[in-house]
Amino acid sequence: MNIVYKSEPERGRQWAELVARLAPEATFRVWPDIGDAQAVDYLIAWQPPDNLMQQFPHLKALFSVGAGADQFDYALLPPELPVVRMIEPGLTQGMVEYVTFAVLGLHRGMPRYLAQQREQRWQTHPVTGAAACRVGVMGAGTLGQAVLGPLVALGYDCAVWSRTEKNVDDVRSYAGEAQLGDFLARSDILVCLLPLTARTEGILNAGLFSQLPPGAALVQAGRGRQLNHADLLTALERQQLSAAVLDVTDPEPLSPEHPFWQHPAIWLTPHIASQTRAESAVRALLDNIRRHQRGEPMVGRVDRARGY
Amino acid sequence: MNIVYKSEPERGRQWAELVARLAPEATFRVWPDIGDAQAVDYLIAWQPPDNLMQQFPHLKALFSVGAGADQFDYALLPPELPVVRMIEPGLTQGMVEYVTFAVLGLHRGMPRYLAQQREQRWQTHPVTGAAACRVGVMGAGTLGQAVLGPLVALGYDCAVWSRTEKNVDDVRSYAGEAQLGDFLARSDILVCLLPLTARTEGILNAGLFSQLPPGAALVQAGRGRQLNHADLLTALERQQLSAAVLDVTDPEPLSPEHPFWQHPAIWLTPHIASQTRAESAVRALLDNIRRHQRGEPMVGRVDRARGY
Repeated sequence: MNIVYKSEPERGRQWAELVARLAPEATFRVWPDIGDAQAVDYLIAWQPPDNLMQQFPHLKALFSVGAGADQFDYALLPPELPVVRMIEPGLTQGMVEYVTFAVLGLHRGMPRYLAQQREQRWQTHPVTGAAACRVGVMGAGTLGQAVLGPLVALGYDCAVWSRTEKNVDDVRSYAGEAQLGDFLARSDILVCLLPLTARTEGILNAGLFSQLPPGAALVQAGRGRQLNHADLLTALERQQLSAAVLDVTDPEPLSPEHPFWQHPAIWLTPHIASQTRAESAVRALLDNIRRHQRGEPMVGRVDRARGY
Repeated sequence: MNIVYKSEPERGRQWAELVARLAPEATFRVWPDIGDAQAVDYLIAWQPPDNLMQQFPHLKALFSVGAGADQFDYALLPPELPVVRMIEPGLTQGMVEYVTFAVLGLHRGMPRYLAQQREQRWQTHPVTGAAACRVGVMGAGTLGQAVLGPLVALGYDCAVWSRTEKNVDDVRSYAGEAQLGDFLARSDILVCLLPLTARTEGILNAGLFSQLPPGAALVQAGRGRQLNHADLLTALERQQLSAAVLDVTDPEPLSPEHPFWQHPAIWLTPHIASQTRAESAVRALLDNIRRHQRGEPMVGRVDRARGY
């Protein structure tokens, strides 16, 4: 197998070492060192070159280095080329940690307490038990299902919403446009883990915020283009929302004068919720390549009609 | 049963309603309305009056409204008077939530990311998996054991240290002075949940910090007088410690000029980790009073020789 890697070079070197150890028979090159382009079977990239198939005429599959594959311009990719998202335990574990942290922080009023700290204010506020705190997770894929485990274990009253009905243990399930309102009305903390599609672009907007219980909080760990920034600021100003934890924005990074940086009720992190962890990612990549070689379905293959 | 409550009046009114519902046969009065002092059987307080036994000559037990009972001046209490700490699921659940939040936040570098946010800096840092993050919990009592559950479930490599050896599932156990050094040397995140005693006063000091791995982090949810403030600031300055999450200090609140308020690597909360939650606390109090009436041991009774 002949693999080319095109993303952060430092991570590429780390991956090259892992491939050498885990699949010594493979050729693994880090962009721009592509070797014989005719011989390249697999490309793993965040952004492929525009002239992908001219450059690599015998390419068998395109892998994303991340959990998403919405960054690809599908108009430039041959329809029959398999496109595969990264599904690896490190990515999932990272998201579980991030969302658990964010939900606990919002439930316990931590944005307010840390803002108070900087104002030298020592003041307690009433707290409700986790069982009285209703968490709603948008997205019931690998990540959505994984984050629900610890939240249920910590005692939160959890529900999940997805495009099509999914069953998740111990969690009330809502599906489709028809049930979105009921789901939102019972989400004191709303967690967005949706993929970016035409339907989810801009979904976190004034209309959606107005359907949440007053004082609800938001965790946005989906994709930047799902959130309407102005609407979030208005909802916080009106205290319709109490706080937001954001890991993704559009653009990334935000411009220096953007109000999110200094907003006391917003915690902003630089797209770190789910970082690909080298060893588990390389194992997942090699496993998928071997599946492809054996003619088996690859894990995380993008359904282009669905968009993820 | 004739109960007097002496603590925050607003909470007292809430408790009075709950007692009326859960134990209609009881008399429950909120200080300073004590009724017939001769008839008072039980006092629940944060601070009892100095002349306790003169005021309530037939007192059968003194209950703390909180998880600790170190605020009592035992020299002023008759040696045979039972003193009982509050052990109730709401308190425990609150501490579990707080410590899980703090450990996740420290593991994922959140104090640094939130400091970066205010500097308008968008920069990612490498992350290790939870399995490579060693958490050490000091204190293996009700709270210490409870917090270990979710931390183990999230994949952290956990150990516990206590005065005397305790067995906790899936957790390596260290005991006494002799094993403290080994325990500290493997604690990337140190969580203090110790009771305040002569032995634990000032325990979080330069000597202890120097035994932690470089760049370790601290969660202090024990008692304020256990932490040497100057030593913490020095350890942070030398990057011996990377960050600290503090829920207790001495005094509370800190003076306005205290450096903890504005320190970028310190998260300070106003003693809210474990707040008594009304309904479960009243149930625990009534349960203990019924145990006492039946001559059974009460849950959380203080061993005065041990100090907690």
